[in-house]
Amino acid sequence: MSLRDGQFLARAIRLAARGRLSCAPNPQVGCVIVRGDVIVGEGWHQRAGQAHAEVNALAMAGDRARGATAYVSLEPCNHQGRTGPCSQALIKAGIKRVVFAAPDASGASGGAQALREAGVEVSSGLLQAEAAALNPGFHRRMSGGRPWLRMKLAMSLDGRSALPDGRSQWITGAQARLDGHRWRARSCAMITGVGTVLADDPQMTARLPHDSVQQPLRVVLDREHRTPRDARLRADEHYLILHASRDPVRNGQSLPVCDERLDLHAAVDALAARGCNEILVEAGPTVSAAFLRAELVDEVIIYAAPALLGQGLPAAELGVLDDLDARIRLDWLDSRRIGDDLRIIARPQTRI
Amino acid sequence: MSLRDGQFLARAIRLAARGRLSCAPNPQVGCVIVRGDVIVGEGWHQRAGQAHAEVNALAMAGDRARGATAYVSLEPCNHQGRTGPCSQALIKAGIKRVVFAAPDASGASGGAQALREAGVEVSSGLLQAEAAALNPGFHRRMSGGRPWLRMKLAMSLDGRSALPDGRSQWITGAQARLDGHRWRARSCAMITGVGTVLADDPQMTARLPHDSVQQPLRVVLDREHRTPRDARLRADEHYLILHASRDPVRNGQSLPVCDERLDLHAAVDALAARGCNEILVEAGPTVSAAFLRAELVDEVIIYAAPALLGQGLPAAELGVLDDLDARIRLDWLDSRRIGDDLRIIARPQTRI
Repeated sequence: MSLRDGQFLARAIRLAARGRLSCAPNPQVGCVIVRGDVIVGEGWHQRAGQAHAEVNALAMAGDRARGATAYVSLEPCNHQGRTGPCSQALIKAGIKRVVFAAPDASGASGGAQALREAGVEVSSGLLQAEAAALNPGFHRRMSGGRPWLRMKLAMSLDGRSALPDGRSQWITGAQARLDGHRWRARSCAMITGVGTVLADDPQMTARLPHDSVQQPLRVVLDREHRTPRDARLRADEHYLILHASRDPVRNGQSLPVCDERLDLHAAVDALAARGCNEILVEAGPTVSAAFLRAELVDEVIIYAAPALLGQGLPAAELGVLDDLDARIRLDWLDSRRIGDDLRIIARPQTRI
Repeated sequence: MSLRDGQFLARAIRLAARGRLSCAPNPQVGCVIVRGDVIVGEGWHQRAGQAHAEVNALAMAGDRARGATAYVSLEPCNHQGRTGPCSQALIKAGIKRVVFAAPDASGASGGAQALREAGVEVSSGLLQAEAAALNPGFHRRMSGGRPWLRMKLAMSLDGRSALPDGRSQWITGAQARLDGHRWRARSCAMITGVGTVLADDPQMTARLPHDSVQQPLRVVLDREHRTPRDARLRADEHYLILHASRDPVRNGQSLPVCDERLDLHAAVDALAARGCNEILVEAGPTVSAAFLRAELVDEVIIYAAPALLGQGLPAAELGVLDDLDARIRLDWLDSRRIGDDLRIIARPQTRI
């Protein structure tokens, strides 16, 4: 492999990210087809059920794909889903060499082997971490792990989400809220608690000035099934009520209860079984704290408003710690201004 | 004035900042002496009582100062303090032209006029805001205003400075604490409350691995004079007890009381009268909140540790607000990682 391989692969990774608001629950994938030194085709996966990145790039390349090299951010698939296997499309188009970044551990894998068996030269491993970072939930779930769970917290700089009586509208600004909708769009599901549903009746949709947004599955933790029939999240059937009721619940799934709450590990497992790779929790202080204490949170996205609120409700009600060592430690990932607010991305450290 | 003038003036401003840990209570000043296109002398003000920036730059330039241009970040002084007037030193050295950035409204002013009367060409105004930003307290106080007051707050990402019972040691890391000592060194005075003195017995000194650090005046808000005789802040005489006791207090100054607390405006005025340009408040939740509510805080320096602490003491105990509009709004100035912590600099908005 060469420096040029790295450059074209980096381009494929950038293309992949163009699908981030629309391709869920599928992974983000990008593809570049190069003949000689010239890019003759580019593509990315735009929407589940539509053409894969390789097919889009091959369509652009046309006859120029013959004898060319294909750079793909993810190992080409080898299965007959709603679209045909990409490995066969690449072979049929006469691609001579395939360079991919991240291997695919899913049921769609085997693409590299199929290509090799057809006489295509296959290289991989370059920029693997960068490509895998596009789809943390996909890769972990395909390797038998949990979906990737993000938690959004909006608060004042002193960590309050509302006044003591609950008044809280517009703690953060319009740009921060818009940014929040981007995390929704890239998530397969978003979770809230029934308390938030009863208090705020949220729509739980990704609202972006963008044609091609994927709506997440709207999930409510609702042990006793208290979600009203006319709740806005029930505007269409793309929702799920996780409950512990004995009665049948429309679009419901029953979960075990643990310490008088729905078992959150079971809730995440239920979403994994439904093909969810990335999950966004946007909930009140109690549910947010429960996910943190259960060590199910991979990433917190904190929008901190430039204000001090004094006494009030915390964004996550963690209660009183026994001692300082029991605090939830985070690793910083990013902090930047979003409009008038500060957005901090951090990862809870796993306890050993 | 020309682009070159701006470049040399920018250099003078950068030189000025070299004195920031040692020159208090004097302002930071830098000077560049240029002959033709060549810098023949550079200097900055290192310590109160020692040579001014212009004198240091002239010493380096020697005979080459004759006919040269002097670039100074602040209008040259015209008074006979512990060192002679810089205007006279520049005239005597044969400087032909003086370009300065920020005018001096203090009792030392008149330098520009004295230079002009001696036939020196004088220009000013370029990079004035940049130069004035070096010494916000100096400029405001010399124009009849208050000293510049900074408040340091160390807290977890959810705004807690300690567990509910007060346990708090090492919320933030070593690098953040070191950075905190830099703000102490550039301050004329640092203020704490007697509660902190009784609980922690702080030294209240600027401790930096640096030869030339200026120690701030150590100030305690101590209405009933409860500071112990052997408190560490009394290690030498460079301290001040602000109190409302009728009995005489060593190194004490009596202040009016307002709402059963020392009048904080009077406290700041007392320090202004002692020549303090920049003041640093490092205090507990009650005193910190009182300064914020009194609208005496120009800048908050927040060190946020990467941790969630749950219930605990706030960094500033602002109580319960009547409504969200009563929150203390801030303007962001800077946020960056300092070691493991996030340092946020923000300015409380003045209410109209």
